[in-house]
Amino acid sequence: MADRFFGELADVPVGSEWLTRLQVSQAGVHRPTVGGISGTKAEGSDSIVVNGGYEDDEDFGDEIYYTGAGGNDPGSGKQVADQSLDQPGNAGLVTSELEGLPVRVVRGSKGDPKYSPTAGFRYDGLYRVADHWSEIGKSGFRIWRYKLVRLSEQEAVPYTPQVNLPAGNPAPRTSTGIVTRVVRTTAVSESIKSLYGYRCQVCNTHLDVPGGIVAEGAHVRGLGKPHSGPDVPENVLCLCPNHHALFDAGGIYLSDDLTVHDMHGHKIGALTRHPKHQIDIGFVGYHRQLWGH
Amino acid sequence: MADRFFGELADVPVGSEWLTRLQVSQAGVHRPTVGGISGTKAEGSDSIVVNGGYEDDEDFGDEIYYTGAGGNDPGSGKQVADQSLDQPGNAGLVTSELEGLPVRVVRGSKGDPKYSPTAGFRYDGLYRVADHWSEIGKSGFRIWRYKLVRLSEQEAVPYTPQVNLPAGNPAPRTSTGIVTRVVRTTAVSESIKSLYGYRCQVCNTHLDVPGGIVAEGAHVRGLGKPHSGPDVPENVLCLCPNHHALFDAGGIYLSDDLTVHDMHGHKIGALTRHPKHQIDIGFVGYHRQLWGH
Repeated sequence: MADRFFGELADVPVGSEWLTRLQVSQAGVHRPTVGGISGTKAEGSDSIVVNGGYEDDEDFGDEIYYTGAGGNDPGSGKQVADQSLDQPGNAGLVTSELEGLPVRVVRGSKGDPKYSPTAGFRYDGLYRVADHWSEIGKSGFRIWRYKLVRLSEQEAVPYTPQVNLPAGNPAPRTSTGIVTRVVRTTAVSESIKSLYGYRCQVCNTHLDVPGGIVAEGAHVRGLGKPHSGPDVPENVLCLCPNHHALFDAGGIYLSDDLTVHDMHGHKIGALTRHPKHQIDIGFVGYHRQLWGH
Repeated sequence: MADRFFGELADVPVGSEWLTRLQVSQAGVHRPTVGGISGTKAEGSDSIVVNGGYEDDEDFGDEIYYTGAGGNDPGSGKQVADQSLDQPGNAGLVTSELEGLPVRVVRGSKGDPKYSPTAGFRYDGLYRVADHWSEIGKSGFRIWRYKLVRLSEQEAVPYTPQVNLPAGNPAPRTSTGIVTRVVRTTAVSESIKSLYGYRCQVCNTHLDVPGGIVAEGAHVRGLGKPHSGPDVPENVLCLCPNHHALFDAGGIYLSDDLTVHDMHGHKIGALTRHPKHQIDIGFVGYHRQLWGH
């Protein structure tokens, strides 16, 4: 772990502006002077620049659908090749999502005019990576996409990483924590979990705790933007937290015959199925294509 | 699943008042006319009454440290016996925590005067069960305690459970979701996860996903009220989501020699340890006594 700094810089309030990328770099807000993503797979990504460089970017202010790095023509912003998660910044944004690390967002004047400065660059605060997936972009090449959501003021607390084994904070303010994973339940999820007796449909695990059982309802095609999957039984699986996390991040996927595969395409086994539970393979296919299978 | 109703009732706004428990029951807000907790292990608990019946209750308005049911003398409110998670309401509150089900809170005039009505009973809105543990109460008997946190207005959305396999909602509002599990990361957690190569210290699992690795930093003595554990390496383990969920809910615990036990006390194996990682057995003992071991 190098001394990459995640979170707000003490001397750079939201709204700070600079004329050039070099100045943004010197301020420590976004170190690379050309690349749009600062970070690595091991450390996570600490900042991005949104500046109209990618044709598939979409900016809604508090939410950004950001395109990964690579494969584009810097002049036109058009994609001319596939993107890869081997690109350090792209993998870094995945790590930031998994670890709940906050990402500094800088907007440049070439971005969506609704949310961008009229000239130069502006620091617009901390966002979290809420989701990522791949898709075929406007020009026909595979791109990686990241949904970034602006942290509310309550959450946007400075995050101070430390090197190796830090002494830590004997009396932490709990508000310095960053949310990494939010699992939502619905009435449909409850019914599916009950149907399977709270056993994971991938590994059959049954996690007993005093007074209860741990299991999660996983939506095959995700709820909410951009996936907009439905909250219906045909779109929900009963999974243990491990397989839910793997499924949501593309570590496992299903073929149309409901065989479970790992991320390399190797078969792991058959998904457990209850006769009363119809799974819609349209949703299974939607999930699979997010991960390029 | 019976037709137990979780969430806000359409015709009962926050602040509604009644003179008697029978009226509260007839309004559907809290069905039992005597018991403080409505619910079962299988369904979860949908409502509680806070009315000074238990000497260990503490009310802070938006946060309540609630005592489970049983073992008390109704006249004095003093504990005269141990409480158990076999009591349906007590187990129901655990299920509500695990499933993220909202709990209606009714306050009676015998509760803490700062937050209670001067007469009768008042509906005070939806809370989530944020934590539970056991401890020895004021009178020397084991009690179960529940930390309830009032849902913010954004979260306090009506929750409509359905029976068996509901048709579901083809276009759900994502705001109807209820947060069930919030995992927080810290710089200390990051360092411990890195030390163990993101492998679970209980089962050695390594959860690979495209671009990243899934692992969680688990605080042995919890952060935040009421446990107020420190965010230091001696208090953090690297666990997979399954063993983190089990550890936090008392499904596994550690002996002082760092052997892992299941909730029935059976040995599962030895916790993996790195020579650079000192684990403080004081915190291990603190966690163990929460679950009565």
